[in-house]
Amino acid sequence: MALHEAKGATYWVIPDAYIPEKSSGGLTSHESVCVLNTSSEDAQLLFTIFFEDREPVEDIPYLVEARRTKHIRTSTLLQEGMPPPAGVPYAIEVKSQIPVIVQYSRLDATQAENALMSVMAYPVR
Amino acid sequence: MALHEAKGATYWVIPDAYIPEKSSGGLTSHESVCVLNTSSEDAQLLFTIFFEDREPVEDIPYLVEARRTKHIRTSTLLQEGMPPPAGVPYAIEVKSQIPVIVQYSRLDATQAENALMSVMAYPVR
Amino acid sequence: MALHEAKGATYWVIPDAYIPEKSSGGLTSHESVCVLNTSSEDAQLLFTIFFEDREPVEDIPYLVEARRTKHIRTSTLLQEGMPPPAGVPYAIEVKSQIPVIVQYSRLDATQAENALMSVMAYPVR
Amino acid sequence: MALHEAKGATYWVIPDAYIPEKSSGGLTSHESVCVLNTSSEDAQLLFTIFFEDREPVEDIPYLVEARRTKHIRTSTLLQEGMPPPAGVPYAIEVKSQIPVIVQYSRLDATQAENALMSVMAYPVR
Repeated sequence: MALHEAKGATYWVIPDAYIPEKSSGGLTSHESVCVLNTSSEDAQLLFTIFFEDREPVEDIPYLVEARRTKHIRTSTLLQEGMPPPAGVPYAIEVKSQIPVIVQYSRLDATQAENALMSVMAYPVR
Repeated sequence: MALHEAKGATYWVIPDAYIPEKSSGGLTSHESVCVLNTSSEDAQLLFTIFFEDREPVEDIPYLVEARRTKHIRTSTLLQEGMPPPAGVPYAIEVKSQIPVIVQYSRLDATQAENALMSVMAYPVR
Repeated sequence: MALHEAKGATYWVIPDAYIPEKSSGGLTSHESVCVLNTSSEDAQLLFTIFFEDREPVEDIPYLVEARRTKHIRTSTLLQEGMPPPAGVPYAIEVKSQIPVIVQYSRLDATQAENALMSVMAYPVR
Repeated sequence: MALHEAKGATYWVIPDAYIPEKSSGGLTSHESVCVLNTSSEDAQLLFTIFFEDREPVEDIPYLVEARRTKHIRTSTLLQEGMPPPAGVPYAIEVKSQIPVIVQYSRLDATQAENALMSVMAYPVR
């Protein structure tokens, strides 16, 4: 079996993270951190959440298996059982022990008709 | 006739791909992988599709002619006659034998009033 | 008077350009190529438009003055008095004789409630 | 206590800045410049605003504390008590004395159903 190389970077940043407080219409407001692991090896991620007015929450673990993508809802990044709070500006740092590629997208369903945004996360080398 | 140089990169990644299941109003939900080939030579692309829970679909071919752009609907990337499934998170890898430039855009027409997102794909050198 | 340095790159690409055919509600569907010239010197730009099925339109000139931004509507990029056609996928190449920074944004007002997208153009070095 | 490193770049550009003139529905049209300071040291920022037809407004100061993010509404970037004007195309330059990461997002609530866009700012090294 061919061995596939890990591609991308091991450290990514998303400065503008935000979970809208309201949802209406058929969909729910949410954010996704979308990770691709091109490698034949699993990628062990560590998420750190930064806030405007308090200490960061550090090193929440998440596994992305070999040759898989994961579209990770930020509401599943739990610290002591709690997700990031809605309605509060925050930022996300993603560390990985092998290179991966990270994109961030948000669906805002505050209104019944939805709004979308997406950015490639910023890789630090 | 002047010969034009190939520009960009030969390997691009889009971690957040998704075909919305519903469409309403006048437009249809879709994604486009938009490729520019600035060169005097044709570009032969190979697409690989990654999933969350199954093996990737590898090396779907696509041609972008010399000095042309193609806005490729992901629903035309067929494997054994089947497009990527709607309503399922996936990721896209684009390889090219010469440098090209790749952008990804999604129109979500789940609601009658549409939502748009776009990112430059991530180039790996 | 202090002399300000030119910053950015001299060659930028936007693979996904498109002028929606329809507008409804209070705003008009349009695209903008937004350029910042940080330098004390004027920047002379040349735009090339690439299509899916015909030869490119090359070297449409545009001036961005020293220490100014220009948010250039693509409908003002005329070749023999004609703008890029609406409803047709195309791509944009921007060359400048000095470094500038280029971003691309689209307002889609096909529906009364608008959709927005924006990307930083891709710099080729 | 561990000392954390500053990450990112010290000079960022956003060519497409714009404050929509109207708001309707439950939310207000606005832009945010979202900054993450991963370092154990405070980051002192200087914003410069560029226009299409007049001299830039230079070096508006803003502090982002150590290990914090700030989602800065552009309407709070005051020069002689005045924010950037609404309905006028402009561009933003962000300088920092230590590396930070910068993303730009806009919520357009011209219509009751909102539109969103976001880009990573362009780093100049």
